[in-house]
This record gives sequence, structure tokens and C-alpha cells, in this order.
Amino acid sequence: MLYKTKYLIRLLIITLSVDMIDITLIAQNHPNLILTKPGVEKIRGNMDAAPLFAQTLAAAQNEVDAEIDEGIAVPVPKDMAGGYTHERHKKNFFILQKAGVLFQLTGEEKYAAYIRDMLLDYAKLYPTLGLHPTNRSYATGKIFWQCLNDANWLVYVSQAYDCVYEWLEPAERALLEKDLFRPMADFLSLENPRFFNRIHNHSTWANAAVGMIGLVMGDEGLVKRALYGLEDDQIPEDARDNDGGFIKIEGKNVAGFLAQLDYSFSPDGHFTEGPYYLRYAIYPYLLFAKSLVNHKPDLGILEYRDGILTKSVYALLYQSDPRGAFFPINDAQKGMSWLARELVAAVDITYFHAGDDPTLLSIAEKQSKVFLDEAGFQVAIDLAQNKAQPFAHQSIEYRDGDDGKKGGLGILRMNGTSNSELCLVMKYAAHGMGHGHFDRLSYALYDDDGEVIQDYGSARWVNIDQKGGGRYLPENKTWAKQTIAHNTVTVNEKTQFKGKVKAAEQQHPSRYFFDASNPNVAVVSAKETSAYSGTELHRTMVMINDEQFRNPLILDLFRVEATDSQQYDLPWWFQGHLLSTNFDYTAETSSLSTMGEAHGYQHLWKEAEGKAKEECAQICWFYEGKFFTLTRDAQADDALIFARLGANDPDFNLRHDPAFILRRENTKSTLFASVFESHGTYNPVREIPEHPFGSIQNVTPLYGDAQYCIVSFETKGGREWVFMMANQNASTDAQHHVQVGEKTFEWRGVYALEEK
Amino acid sequence: MLYKTKYLIRLLIITLSVDMIDITLIAQNHPNLILTKPGVEKIRGNMDAAPLFAQTLAAAQNEVDAEIDEGIAVPVPKDMAGGYTHERHKKNFFILQKAGVLFQLTGEEKYAAYIRDMLLDYAKLYPTLGLHPTNRSYATGKIFWQCLNDANWLVYVSQAYDCVYEWLEPAERALLEKDLFRPMADFLSLENPRFFNRIHNHSTWANAAVGMIGLVMGDEGLVKRALYGLEDDQIPEDARDNDGGFIKIEGKNVAGFLAQLDYSFSPDGHFTEGPYYLRYAIYPYLLFAKSLVNHKPDLGILEYRDGILTKSVYALLYQSDPRGAFFPINDAQKGMSWLARELVAAVDITYFHAGDDPTLLSIAEKQSKVFLDEAGFQVAIDLAQNKAQPFAHQSIEYRDGDDGKKGGLGILRMNGTSNSELCLVMKYAAHGMGHGHFDRLSYALYDDDGEVIQDYGSARWVNIDQKGGGRYLPENKTWAKQTIAHNTVTVNEKTQFKGKVKAAEQQHPSRYFFDASNPNVAVVSAKETSAYSGTELHRTMVMINDEQFRNPLILDLFRVEATDSQQYDLPWWFQGHLLSTNFDYTAETSSLSTMGEAHGYQHLWKEAEGKAKEECAQICWFYEGKFFTLTRDAQADDALIFARLGANDPDFNLRHDPAFILRRENTKSTLFASVFESHGTYNPVREIPEHPFGSIQNVTPLYGDAQYCIVSFETKGGREWVFMMANQNASTDAQHHVQVGEKTFEWRGVYALEEK
Repeated sequence: MLYKTKYLIRLLIITLSVDMIDITLIAQNHPNLILTKPGVEKIRGNMDAAPLFAQTLAAAQNEVDAEIDEGIAVPVPKDMAGGYTHERHKKNFFILQKAGVLFQLTGEEKYAAYIRDMLLDYAKLYPTLGLHPTNRSYATGKIFWQCLNDANWLVYVSQAYDCVYEWLEPAERALLEKDLFRPMADFLSLENPRFFNRIHNHSTWANAAVGMIGLVMGDEGLVKRALYGLEDDQIPEDARDNDGGFIKIEGKNVAGFLAQLDYSFSPDGHFTEGPYYLRYAIYPYLLFAKSLVNHKPDLGILEYRDGILTKSVYALLYQSDPRGAFFPINDAQKGMSWLARELVAAVDITYFHAGDDPTLLSIAEKQSKVFLDEAGFQVAIDLAQNKAQPFAHQSIEYRDGDDGKKGGLGILRMNGTSNSELCLVMKYAAHGMGHGHFDRLSYALYDDDGEVIQDYGSARWVNIDQKGGGRYLPENKTWAKQTIAHNTVTVNEKTQFKGKVKAAEQQHPSRYFFDASNPNVAVVSAKETSAYSGTELHRTMVMINDEQFRNPLILDLFRVEATDSQQYDLPWWFQGHLLSTNFDYTAETSSLSTMGEAHGYQHLWKEAEGKAKEECAQICWFYEGKFFTLTRDAQADDALIFARLGANDPDFNLRHDPAFILRRENTKSTLFASVFESHGTYNPVREIPEHPFGSIQNVTPLYGDAQYCIVSFETKGGREWVFMMANQNASTDAQHHVQVGEKTFEWRGVYALEEK
Repeated sequence: MLYKTKYLIRLLIITLSVDMIDITLIAQNHPNLILTKPGVEKIRGNMDAAPLFAQTLAAAQNEVDAEIDEGIAVPVPKDMAGGYTHERHKKNFFILQKAGVLFQLTGEEKYAAYIRDMLLDYAKLYPTLGLHPTNRSYATGKIFWQCLNDANWLVYVSQAYDCVYEWLEPAERALLEKDLFRPMADFLSLENPRFFNRIHNHSTWANAAVGMIGLVMGDEGLVKRALYGLEDDQIPEDARDNDGGFIKIEGKNVAGFLAQLDYSFSPDGHFTEGPYYLRYAIYPYLLFAKSLVNHKPDLGILEYRDGILTKSVYALLYQSDPRGAFFPINDAQKGMSWLARELVAAVDITYFHAGDDPTLLSIAEKQSKVFLDEAGFQVAIDLAQNKAQPFAHQSIEYRDGDDGKKGGLGILRMNGTSNSELCLVMKYAAHGMGHGHFDRLSYALYDDDGEVIQDYGSARWVNIDQKGGGRYLPENKTWAKQTIAHNTVTVNEKTQFKGKVKAAEQQHPSRYFFDASNPNVAVVSAKETSAYSGTELHRTMVMINDEQFRNPLILDLFRVEATDSQQYDLPWWFQGHLLSTNFDYTAETSSLSTMGEAHGYQHLWKEAEGKAKEECAQICWFYEGKFFTLTRDAQADDALIFARLGANDPDFNLRHDPAFILRRENTKSTLFASVFESHGTYNPVREIPEHPFGSIQNVTPLYGDAQYCIVSFETKGGREWVFMMANQNASTDAQHHVQVGEKTFEWRGVYALEEK
């Protein structure tokens, strides 16, 4: 009773003080969160013109009808992700949201009744719940093991509630709001400030959940809390989440949805945690934004920060391989792509609300479904009218940091004469918060079939109960985040920043140069000076198209400047099966040992080691019907190591992937140069190898110091190129001149590639 | 001179005595080998009605035109497979054959001129050639490293020659026949009896090559030689080929094409070497047969041995997984499928000449091309008229041996409620000659996506020069042929027959029972008594469909009767990543050792070992979006071992595949029982596991001796089944009665499956 009185008083105060909104009026204007009354009218009358919408709706109907037949289950929460209660509650919110849409678009009351009945079950259960019994999260939920999933629930269920709002009896609404929605909104915000008041994808869900249910209930207090955060959260500066990420951004005390828009993205829409997490966060970002468009058009949320949400959707689409699978940078499960449900919403909402870009329609076509609102409806109509145009992946650089000054991500793409795309992504972004990997100046390489040189991704099987309840596995920290797990130099067998998140978050790499304007030569170059003390790392990657080669080449120059003698390991995490080398090696045939004790080396078996016979070490390998060759300069003492992942893995959590590692010991400053080729194909049905051998004969560093790098490479047919590079002057006008013995090299700008 | 005179006399005798054929008449009736004059007329006038034919022809034209533009290259032979001269000569014969077809169907003389010019180059080169310099084959060729490839060349080029025969000047024909075709035909037969006079796929090529060029030239002597073999080959009984296979079949002195038809197949069309090699041999079988249909219709070659060739084509199609990839039994490269060029010819010729089976059209549709003759033309017409019907893979047993009494191959197939096919192939065939593996009572399991429980196939990268010139690698013998590489019991860490081919060829397993007539329970059962002395192996595999399970279950009973105490290893070569076990194990985390010194064990790393805690050992794994669980009975002392392939592999020739091995030591007779389930799915885009846990709780042997096996298995939900089996009485009428403690089991026939 006391609670109720307090509640009514609070409601009264909010209603009177904040916006003087007439609750009665709002109550008569549902749905208006995602679906709107006029939108519903339009859709109902024109379904024939939008076959993909009708098809998506029919699939939703089949799914929801089957659930209705099975009956409602609202079990007492107990399990981790992957377990029954978790998966059941998760399914419930997906189904409730769809049932709401179905009620509005078909008018069939059974859907409304199903929502009412299930929500009343939740309203009965919720007040009885303490914290979830697992108690394993920095922010334990009630329905799920973490608040994050409770917030997911509320973002989806707000939509269902909006759809049946007017159909429900006022007493039912009152009960649901009193026992379920309002307590949940408070739990996710007031009672969990570390979860709610943070610049992080978790908090985006929290903000959206509280804001969306606030909009449906007409509770401006909740909406304000969602937009601007809690005023005083009393969170200590050094508080961390389960993934080791800091709750607070040093020196900033901001929170709420608008602050997320200000600080989660770079000015061009890049999301520090990477595309896998942006894919996850984009749903609450866009759904709450769309709700605000409908409820508070004056806020101009889609124009906020120069249209940051639209930019973020494009950033997401561009940060994917030729098949549309997101680059698995930082913690990310591989295979997530623009086919994800969140992207269906993102593509359709962006198309409808931000400019009718016809290239988005071709992605919608691949998704083979649309978002079930007016936006998806328009997409389906325009698809039926053949307005789709191909989505063109572009070479592009994304800056990192809210100010765009914290490094970035360089993406190079070209098609060779084989017409397959080669796509390189080099990472020189800031540390990706709790999900960051110690992988500065690493890269990954893709073609039309997927990975060629891989990034490991995360050591996690999302939602698969058998693997640690679906959470991050211990090997995520001991392996996946470590530097040797990535295609970048590891110094002295130590991970960058010795694996310290705080140190990594305080420094960022710096972009040096990015230019993809020349269709035949594209360059990305960046530096990192703080990951290892007394050591400057500078990598330049060049994609080169020439009609002689079936696919573009990759020239890779990794320059190290160091004051002391050190050991450098540069791995190639090639996908596939080794075919041949041009050097001798000794294989460990009857026993295997690990390559080290820590920093990820404890997870590597050493399979073989050799020395280069010639000035270049070459390996040729085969993967998914294609032949690849890597040619790299090698010094006489360089160790050429074949390693395989899988040691110290008592629970079989890791993949057993191969790597080729060049190790250079007792060296101060040095330059690593290599050329990668994708040159041939083989199909086991035809059994005829096409171009099984690479064309490159050698790659030779001609000059290398802090100021300049000059490298030549030559084909077996005798063609020779020279790549010249200024390391300390990014001006495109500067004139450079280097004398090497009797030869003079002259060029203008940062780099030049010349055929001799 | 003496040779030539003898040859002419023999030719004269044959020409006069055998068929009294008028050579002049034949000469005016080309083409008549594969294409025929009336066939060409028909095709030319009706191309519009056969769009797939026109499309295939256009593709051939593009390919040949590009080659004509590049110019003719007939290099002096030098390289192994994968090297330049090998691949060039190989390409030449493919292109020549296509150019011949193009000349006939388009009438463009440039194709005839191209053939003439290249053949004249060959005619200049051939007389200068000694044996190929590689000298690595039991039958070294002249153009290629082995006679086999020379025979390939002649089978294809005979067709080209037939197509331009009438267009050539008589003097050109005379020159080609004198310097090229006749010497080559003699070289491949008279001069290489071990190659020509043998029951083997190599000899089928030789017979067809000699026979086809004989038909074109009107040389009945060659045709007779091809059909009936050399009379006296003087090959010693113990001569062997490069693969370790014996040239002679013990006690049989037969050779030639008709003998191949008599002895290479079982009465139902099974080919002892397996489908990979039948795929290779089917081309000369069918092409020579078709040539004989055109030239010697009275021979009735397609009706020979009750239509054995047609049966063999169906055997090939049935011996494939749900995607059409051939079972890789014996030496076989994986991935070969009914999309192979040889199968295009086989499907079209079989359709046209043997009954217009409309289900073959659906395979032609998947092949997306047709054979460029009258048969392919008819296929294209009937496809355009929508006559195609689905090709239905069936559960079927193939007997082995020319008499059908040397074991066989049992194939079980069912669709579960998930509508995906599960397909099991159990092998109890005779030893597959030089390409045989020591794998009696092994099996492999497939679903719609391919392999689930794999057979390794061969250790060979066909035509890939970097891997041993594309030939069989040393690991083919040390690993791929060994028993532990297969899903069958290895006794005392020794390969069956101690790895001796001769011993294996003298004995064969025996089928015990096969019944796939019940749509919900299908059984295959076979015995092997000679592979290990004093040991009888008896395996029964049962595929069970029940609406409770999304896919059929596999119940596997492996019974061993032995007079002495022995060690038994039963591996599961599961594809994928281990998720969980219901038992504890100790993983080798910091070093790995091999499991043994020989018989394949030297190639296995031991990764972990455990003991069962309960009566059943379960493992759950994940592969390509699916969850699988194996539940097996385990005794207290059974060792449960996780192994991985890749040890003693100095050239990285092997795949690093995982295995789960149950080891039972110090045991005489015993029974191994297990149940396999494919129960769930997971998609990294949706991230929602569906049915990630299996249903089976346990599997329990209730009774096992030489006479009977009784096994029960139970679901977590409490449903229980009992499978009862008579081991020594294959009668379907016999009544059986077994008392186990207080329980009585009674059934009629070989087996019974009852739910309790």
C-alpha cells in the first residue's frame, strides 16, 4: 500500500512537472512506438504490393501460432545462457514482440490475448523475484543472469505492450505497469547504476529499455532518465565489468542515450568495441530512436550529431567482408553478418528514415525478410518495384574515438582479373574497452569465400551452454586477446602493454596515412609507440592491382625502431593446409611442446622450424579451392616456425589453427617485408589445378631507417617493382631523395610504386 | 621392318577372317564413333529446342577459341602430373575432343584445321620419343609419366580424329595413322601387356583407347585386341603395380574389354575399387561401348551381362552422399561427385540408350551441362520440356565380387522430422585391389551438408604438383590404408591382415543380413573372420526413425569373439569440435606424444584420456551448425581417448582431424554398443541454439554371446527400447527365445526392435 501511494505521488509529480502530458490522450494513441496507427492502416490496405513483407509476416505468424499452440511458459529463472529458463524467457520476448505486430496487422485477437496472458504471468512472477540465483555478473538481472538480458526483454516487450495497450482493460494496464514494467525499469536504472549509467553497449540497451517502456506508459520521468542518465550514480572510478572493462570513462561523467550517441561513436560512425558489438547495440539505438521520432519529432534524434546513427549503420555495413560477415575485431563471434535480425531492422529503418538509398535494398534482398513496420513495408514495396541497386563495398578509413583522433581502421578492397574481391582490414584503433584485444597494427584478409588470413575472434561459443554457459571462456583472456593471436609483431614474447587494459586504454595508435583513391595502388599506414617501451612499430600495407596477377597483391612493410636488442615474432594466421616451402625445416614428428609459458605462447604447439636457404622464404598453401603464396625477405638467422594452436586447452575450447611465424632475435631496428599472392584454383570435381604456383620470385628491402623504406619485388618472369616510402612526412607534396649505393631513388609524396 | 611385316600380315588375317568389313565403306561414314552423321544432322537443325545443349556448346566454343588464339603447344614430355608438360598434353586432349565436336556441330573449318595441325605436331614428336624420362611407373608412358595418361589421350583424341577424318587429306590420315595412332595403340597394348592385359581401371582405358582408335581407322585387329585382350602376355603371377596391387587375378587368365565387364563388376554393378575409381573408369567403359553401339550394334554391348554397364552407372549414383559426393571408400579424393565430367557423359548416355529414366534428368540439371552428342541433345530437349523428376537416393545393398558373393556395401538412408537425410554406408566388401584399405566393417555417416562421421579417403592431392607430383603420398600407406584410420575395431594396435594386400585379397567379409524394407528400422549386418587370427568380428548397424527424434538414430553393435585376451580400439572419426563429455578426462596440456610406433598409431597424437564415471560415456560435439551426441556403453576399465591426426608427418601431408577412441584391454569376447544422435542446430547469425542436448540417456547391453545380442537404450524422458538380434541365424522366420535373469525375450526373425 505504501509503495502504491508513493508510486502514485511520484507519477503525479512527473506528470505535472515534466511535460504536462495528458495521459488520457496518449492512451488513445497506441500503437505509436514502432508501429503507428496510420502506418498500420497503410500496411493493412496494401499488402499485395509488398510480397516480401507479406512473406515475413506469414513466417512470423507460423512461428507465433506454433508457440500459442504449445502454451505459455514463464518459468522461475534459474539457468545461465543456453539453459532452459534463459532460452525460454528469451524466446518469450521475441515471440511477444512478433505477436504484438501480428495483432496490429491481422487484427486477430488471439495474439492480444496471448500477450496479455503471458504478461500477467510475468506480472505475477516478477514481484517474487530476487536477484537471479547465478550471481555471476557485475550487474545480475532478475529474469536472466545479467541485467543486459532483462533490458533486451524490456526493449522487445515494450513494443508488444504498445501494440495491445488500447486493447487491454485499464485495470490490466495498471497491474502490468505497477507489478512489472515500472519496477523493472527502476531495477534496470536506479537499482543498477553501473549497468545503466555507462558509455557501453550494455547501457544502450538499458537506456532504450527504460525509455521505450516510458514512452509507452507515458512516463516522462523514465524517458528523461533514459535520455540523460542518472544524475548521481556514485560509481567508483576503477569499477569494472565482467569482461575487465572499466565502467567509467576517465575524466568524463556522462550517461544516458544522448551521451551514448556522443561518446560511443567516432564522428564517422565507428564504434570502438567493433562491428560485432555494434550489430548488437544497433537494435536498441535504432528502435529507441524510431520511438523518439514517433513520440518526440522535435528532438530530431536522427539528425543528432550530424546524423550519427545513420553513419553508424553504414559503418557497420562497410566493416564486413565480401560476403557481409563482420570483421571479428576485438571480442567477436565469427559468422555474424548483415543477415542478423538487428541488421534487418537497421537496413530498413535507415532506408525509410534516411534517404531511400537504393543500394540498401540489395542487402534487404539478401536478408530475404523485412522489419515488420512501415519502414520494412516500404522496403518490400520498393524491392517489388525493382528499385534495388548493388551495395558497393568501398575502400574506406574509419577514425576511432569520439573526437576521431584515436587511430582507426583502414579497409582496402579491390577486384582482380579473377573478379573476386580481395579485402584487407588493418586495425590501429583505440583499445576496444572491456572487449578490446591487444592487437595494434594487426590485419585480416578476406576474399569472396571468406577468411584468407584470419583474426581469431573471441574464445566464446555464444549461448552454447556446454561451453561455459555461453560466456567468454578462460582462453579468451589467455589466448584470444593476446598479441601473438594476431597478425602483428610480438616483442620479446610479451603481449602489448603486458596485457594491461588500463594502460592500453590510455594510449592509442596513430594513423599515418591512408589513400585508396588510386584504383591500382591503395595504402594504409599507422604507427604505435606505446605498446612496448622503447619501441616504435610502423606498419604500411599496400594493395596492388596489375593485370599480370589474377588477384591483387599485398605488400606488407613492418618497421620496428628500438633502442635495445629484442626478439620479434611476426605470425601469419593463414587458413588452410601447407603445400610447400622453398626452405628446409625440421618437423617435430614424435612429440610436441609448447612455444612458451605465457602471453598466449602456452597455447601454441611448435610443429616445425627451419631456416631460409635463399634471401626469401616462401610458403604455398591451399584453402577452399584456392592456392596462396607468401614471399618474405628472410635474414640468415631468422627462424621460420610452423605452429599450431591447441596447447594448454584442457576443455577443448580452442580451434586447432595453423600459423607461420617469422622470428628475428637479438635485433634493434629492423624491417619486415613480404608479398602475399592469391593465384590459383582447384576443384576436386575437375581435379585440374589452375595457376598452382605464385608469380613472385623475391621481395628485397633495399633501404630502411627511421626516415625511409625502399623495397623491391620481382616476378619469376623478370618484372620488378620498387616501393618507396617516407616514414616521417605524410605530406603528399614533399619531394624525397634517397641514395643507396650508386642508385638514386626520387619520388614525391608519402609513397611511390614504380615498375623498373 | 620385320615387325611391320608381321603386323601387316596379322592385320590382313584379322580383316579377312573376323568380320570381312569393307574398310573403304567405313572411311566414308565418319563421324560414327560418338557423334554420328544422322545425329549431327538432327542436332544442327534443332538447337533451339535444347537450350542447355546450346549453352554447353557455347562454353566449349569459348574455351576452344581461347586455346586456338593462344596457339598450339606440343612440348617434349618431361614433367610429372601437375607439371607443365603433363598439364599441357592433358589440356590438349580435352581441347582436341571439343574441337572435333565443334567442327561437326558448327561446320567451322578452323576447328578441323586446329586438330589437323596439332595432330601433325604430335605425329612429328611421337616417333622421336622413348619412354617418358620420369620412369616412375610400372607402365611408363611416352607423352605422360604413365601409360594410363597416354591411354586417356587416345580415348579423347580418337573422337577428334573421327570428327575430322573425312575432312583430312588421305595422305594426312595415312601419316597420322602410321606415325602416331597405330604405334601408340601398339605401345599401349603389345608393348605394355601389364598395363593392357589386366582386370583394372587402367586397362579399361587401355582397351578403350586401342578399340576406339581401331574403330576410327577401321582396324579390326585393334578392335579385337581391345575386346578380347592379348592372347599371351607372359606376365608373372606375382607382378604388381605402383599402388601395390597385383596385375593378375589369381587363377584367372582373362583380359580385354569384355573381360573387364565380366570381372570388374559384381552382378549388380558394384566396382570393387569403389566409386571414385568407377567414376574414372566409367568414361572409357561408356565411350567405347557407345562406339560399339554405333559400329557393331550386333554385339549388343549395352545388353552384355544383363545390362551391366547401366547397372554400374546406377551403382555409381547410389554410392554417393545426399549431395552427390561419392563415398570415399578405398583410395579416393574427397569431393568428387556426380558433377564430374565423366558423370555428365554417363548420365546422358544412360538416359538416352537405357530407358529414358526421368530421374536422371534432375541430375543432368544439377550438372548444368550435357554431353555434346545426340544423347546430351536429347537430355537437353527433355529438360526443356520439364520432364525431370527428382532422383531418389535409396537404401540399397551392393554385393561385391564378380559372382556377387564377396561381401558388399550396405547403404541406409532415412529422412527425419527435420527433413534432412541421414545416410550410412557400411563396408564389408572385398579388398579393393591396389587401392584397397584395411577397413572391414567400417562405416561413414553423412547428412545433407556432407560428412558427419568421416572416412579419411586417400592421402593424395590429385594433380597438385607441390604434394609429391600429385601421386599417392607415403602417408597413404602408413596412414590412410591402416585400420585405425577407419571407424572399425583395431585389435592389438595392428592393422587387419597385418597390412598384407595378398592375404586381404584372398579373403572377404561376409554379409549376414540387410533389410531396409521397414521405413522406420533398417539394418545392415556383416561378419569378418580372417582379418585377425582367432577373432570373429560382427557388426550390426541399425537406423531408427521415431517421431520423437528430429533425425534418425544409429544403433551400432560391434561384437567380437576371440579365443585370447586382446586389446580393442574402436574410434569415432567425428567431424567438428568437442563441446562436452559426461566423464572426466586428463588432457595433455604442455606436451604431446604419439599413440604408437606403427600401423597408423605413429600418426596419432594423444590429446586426452579419461574413464567413464557412469555406465555410459557421452560426448557432444558441434559441426557446421549442428549438434551431435554419441552415447556408448562403457566398462569401468575402458579408456576413453581423444586423439588427433598429424604426428610423424614431416611434410604436412595429413589433415589434423580429431577422433574419439574407446579402448578395451585384456578382453576376449565382448560387445560394443552405442547410439548416435544428430539433434540440434545453431546459426552464428541467430545465435540461438535449437535442441543443443541429446535425448538419449543410456545404452545398455543386456545380453551378448555368440548366439544373441540384446541391447536396451533409454531417453531422458524415460522411453526405452530393446533391440534383440540373432547372431547365427539369418532366417526371417526363426523363433528366438532368450532368458536373462528373470526376463524373457522372444522374437521372430533376425532382429526385433521393441519399445518397452
